[in-house]
Amino acid sequence: MANYNPGPANTTGAAVAPTPLLKDELDIVIPTIRNLDFLEMWRPFLQPYHLIIVQDGDPSKTIKVPPGFDYELYNRNDINKILGPRASCISFKDSACRCFGYMVSKKKYIFTIDDDCFVANDPTGKPINALEQHIKNLLCPSTPFFFNTLYEPYREGADFVRGYPFSLREGVPTAVSHGLWLNIPDYDAPTQLVKPLERNTRYVDAILTIPKGTLFPMCGMNLAFDRDLIGPAMYFGLMGDGQPIGRYDDMWAGWCCKVITDHLGLGIKTGLPYIYHSKASNPFVNLRKEYKGIFWQEDIIPFFQNVVLPKECTTVQKCYIELSKQVKEKLSKVDPYFDKLADAMVTWIEAWDDLNPQKPAAK
Amino acid sequence: MANYNPGPANTTGAAVAPTPLLKDELDIVIPTIRNLDFLEMWRPFLQPYHLIIVQDGDPSKTIKVPPGFDYELYNRNDINKILGPRASCISFKDSACRCFGYMVSKKKYIFTIDDDCFVANDPTGKPINALEQHIKNLLCPSTPFFFNTLYEPYREGADFVRGYPFSLREGVPTAVSHGLWLNIPDYDAPTQLVKPLERNTRYVDAILTIPKGTLFPMCGMNLAFDRDLIGPAMYFGLMGDGQPIGRYDDMWAGWCCKVITDHLGLGIKTGLPYIYHSKASNPFVNLRKEYKGIFWQEDIIPFFQNVVLPKECTTVQKCYIELSKQVKEKLSKVDPYFDKLADAMVTWIEAWDDLNPQKPAAK
Repeated sequence: MANYNPGPANTTGAAVAPTPLLKDELDIVIPTIRNLDFLEMWRPFLQPYHLIIVQDGDPSKTIKVPPGFDYELYNRNDINKILGPRASCISFKDSACRCFGYMVSKKKYIFTIDDDCFVANDPTGKPINALEQHIKNLLCPSTPFFFNTLYEPYREGADFVRGYPFSLREGVPTAVSHGLWLNIPDYDAPTQLVKPLERNTRYVDAILTIPKGTLFPMCGMNLAFDRDLIGPAMYFGLMGDGQPIGRYDDMWAGWCCKVITDHLGLGIKTGLPYIYHSKASNPFVNLRKEYKGIFWQEDIIPFFQNVVLPKECTTVQKCYIELSKQVKEKLSKVDPYFDKLADAMVTWIEAWDDLNPQKPAAK
Repeated sequence: MANYNPGPANTTGAAVAPTPLLKDELDIVIPTIRNLDFLEMWRPFLQPYHLIIVQDGDPSKTIKVPPGFDYELYNRNDINKILGPRASCISFKDSACRCFGYMVSKKKYIFTIDDDCFVANDPTGKPINALEQHIKNLLCPSTPFFFNTLYEPYREGADFVRGYPFSLREGVPTAVSHGLWLNIPDYDAPTQLVKPLERNTRYVDAILTIPKGTLFPMCGMNLAFDRDLIGPAMYFGLMGDGQPIGRYDDMWAGWCCKVITDHLGLGIKTGLPYIYHSKASNPFVNLRKEYKGIFWQEDIIPFFQNVVLPKECTTVQKCYIELSKQVKEKLSKVDPYFDKLADAMVTWIEAWDDLNPQKPAAK
């Protein structure tokens, strides 16, 4: 098992599914600073979908997209033009800028992927259509209230086991599908430094719901979600240029999403699909970006573990604004950064509602 | 993956590990009503260990044990002799009687297995030494406070991922290792009736800690635990002869153990190892045993989800006695059975402490 070839896969000539799932209801968001050659390998699976490319860094640089892909591209100038002063809530020189793509999408579903992620092989050698698995995860309920020992009960060949309460078998809507990575695991800088050669070769054939009340480290590399259910909470925070911290963008979004999905009775799944993560980022650079987060996290996690959202918070926006207040109140004493972040959370919601006015319930 | 041969394995001539782990610190508890021919297949893995056989049903029947195994056997007459009037807390004509074996053991660790469970193959075709994996699970910490997306962080080739708080990486002691089943899945009677042909062929190469605050359906078929840490809570309740319910023995123990391990800061793992479960029990008989449980469970689960154990409960025994009081107070209104069960829980602890007097902290 541990010695199979996890990828990258050879997808040349791979058959495209005749009718791609949710073709007109899903956008693929890619943050990048380089030409998107990595898409060549994804062509059989992703070409039918619309791409939203968020160009980070120098806006005068031209990003080449392989022919045949349908896309819109936003650079920093575009972001500033569209959001005006509210553009301050979108990170610069950090892949956290991807959340701008979530905001301008008009679709119900988002799949976001990093440009160093390739198609992985499953243990039988078959290239994995990650997006298809994410869609399956999102369209199928979650079970956050009780653990099923045979994992995802709705998969073929599986079910709820003896002792699983029948009243809980209907499940709840799935808001987020968190995929994993073969080859380079998503480690923090200290672990990268200690285990420079570690590669993830274990293909775990499971999907599971993260139980209610349990936090998890959400990675933005291979992630899909339902914008209607959780979009406004998918804010990747203030990272990169001018900020004291990096590499906590997806973590922050994950913690916010988890307490909000728990509050609203929604689910988050993790496990399949795998992508092949090709190169480890520089651990020394990462350490500089992360080290404050490593300290702060020891306060952030207990904060999120104890967050209580009042009953009046019936929409994601209301939950998020309430969360921003609690961040200001309780985390600002950890560092003034959180004061700024709390303000940016409010700005983000204002910008979201401006660009997505069709949802009056969100006001 | 789904089409490999899950077993039963051919273990003839399989090599025994030179020094079996914990050889003198672990007992294997087997409840049975028949000759233990199934042990032949387990010989390479289990022969070095001591067996405690709990013979259910007619005590005049002779149970044959394959030669070469070291064992002690208790039938109903023995149980009555050893426990006197307290024998009432041990179920009769139900595999729940196995918990008597936990009580009379003098070892730190227990592995319990059903006599219709055989050695499974892993996807490479190698017979799985289930006990060895259980021991590894028990000797390695649990991480109940935060979810690790790459599953068991202590396994070779894995670690804690980015965003996992460093203060939580030491983990907590593992009290229970819950193994799974290939071939016949552990379904309730309604699911058995609806899916008579379903077989579990999915080998999920994962071990994970059930998060704090989350209940799970613990199956007694393939289970190991640390008696010192959780033994007195491994009571399998009143089932079988003269009782209105069956097939909830392990579930009951699992729910009690989970709230107590959560309270005491211990962990429960599930996942590997797999055994090969050979035959489905009769779904019609099972339905008769289960149907009250299926109703009652809808009250039992919210009860356990809301149990709060006071700080003074610093030992498993104290926790368990407190739990018995809460069962009496809150579940007796569901059915008078729970009044009886609450009394039996107290009797069980009295008997446990009588047979295990060496632990004064337990009083």
